[in-house]
Amino acid sequence: MVDEDTSGAGRRSVGAQRSQESAEAILEAAQQVLSESGYAGFSIEAVARRARAGKPTIYRWWPSKTALLLDVYQRQKRDVVYPDTGSVEEDLFLFMVSLFRQWRETPTGNIFRSILAEAQSDPETTAALSAYSEARRQNTGQIIVRALSRGEVKAGTDPKIVADLASSYAWSHLLTDRLNENEDTIRQAVRILVHGIRA
Amino acid sequence: MVDEDTSGAGRRSVGAQRSQESAEAILEAAQQVLSESGYAGFSIEAVARRARAGKPTIYRWWPSKTALLLDVYQRQKRDVVYPDTGSVEEDLFLFMVSLFRQWRETPTGNIFRSILAEAQSDPETTAALSAYSEARRQNTGQIIVRALSRGEVKAGTDPKIVADLASSYAWSHLLTDRLNENEDTIRQAVRILVHGIRA
Repeated sequence: MVDEDTSGAGRRSVGAQRSQESAEAILEAAQQVLSESGYAGFSIEAVARRARAGKPTIYRWWPSKTALLLDVYQRQKRDVVYPDTGSVEEDLFLFMVSLFRQWRETPTGNIFRSILAEAQSDPETTAALSAYSEARRQNTGQIIVRALSRGEVKAGTDPKIVADLASSYAWSHLLTDRLNENEDTIRQAVRILVHGIRA
Repeated sequence: MVDEDTSGAGRRSVGAQRSQESAEAILEAAQQVLSESGYAGFSIEAVARRARAGKPTIYRWWPSKTALLLDVYQRQKRDVVYPDTGSVEEDLFLFMVSLFRQWRETPTGNIFRSILAEAQSDPETTAALSAYSEARRQNTGQIIVRALSRGEVKAGTDPKIVADLASSYAWSHLLTDRLNENEDTIRQAVRILVHGIRA
């Protein structure tokens, strides 16, 4: 069996490979620290100790505690689906329902609530959160980009504005303890957005 | 000149009048405490001292510090317009733009950010915030209720879901320091909602 990544021009250098392993080990350690000590006990120091790594190694990849935390959060949120069913309404609906479920049923909801709270008094966290949420809107916007290319939604629709409306709706539910919103209501909210942009 | 409120069956009792004056004095005191000491220095004790009132008097009207704070916040937010132009798009757009401006240009934005942050770790604040935001969605929903009665939007449209989408969009801008969003983008977001529900 040939592993394509280890031969020919695509081969990664030993150094790069070590870096990736070490980054992975740091993320793993960060996840453990978070689940054992919670948001309050989470610090670069604690992660460095757990990973047996130096703080400079951590700061090489993550400029701040929040940046690292957001990576751990994103990693735990892997089960959120970004479907591609061929229907923009289905894609958005399934995405929203799976996001609500993840937040409700895993620690990700509380992690993200803590980050949102911290961002209201700490400018560094605000910056990290802004960069993160901008990237997520870009990602969610792919649902609209695909619908545009299918001619399903109006030309000129800005995918980021639609993604912003959808993710804002999810955020406010997280913030006010409404993650058990019934699916029919979520469906109606998604329909308003989708009818608002359809070709 | 006859003041209808002071004669006949509609006359308020002296007691009720005193209560209202005292509630007003407490709100006034609360506002002063907040602007001098900020969110961190705001407490029922400090307000009671400033208003020369007993804590039980305050608790008679406001069950918690956050409930009082939300009333002060709402009082300072008086300049947000709830227009009635005859067009649902204009009403929603003008409301959003004035809300963004109020948050950006007065202390109301930071007060509300603090409340949102506090609600993420303190259940009493979460409950007060939930009740408050539910009432605000009801209020903003009046824009849609009027449009329904004009036949401007689809029968069966749920005003609270539209209000939820609109206010969530505003919240996420407040939380990620995007209150300087340009008006054309806000206009596009409002149009998506309005096109999504029009008859």
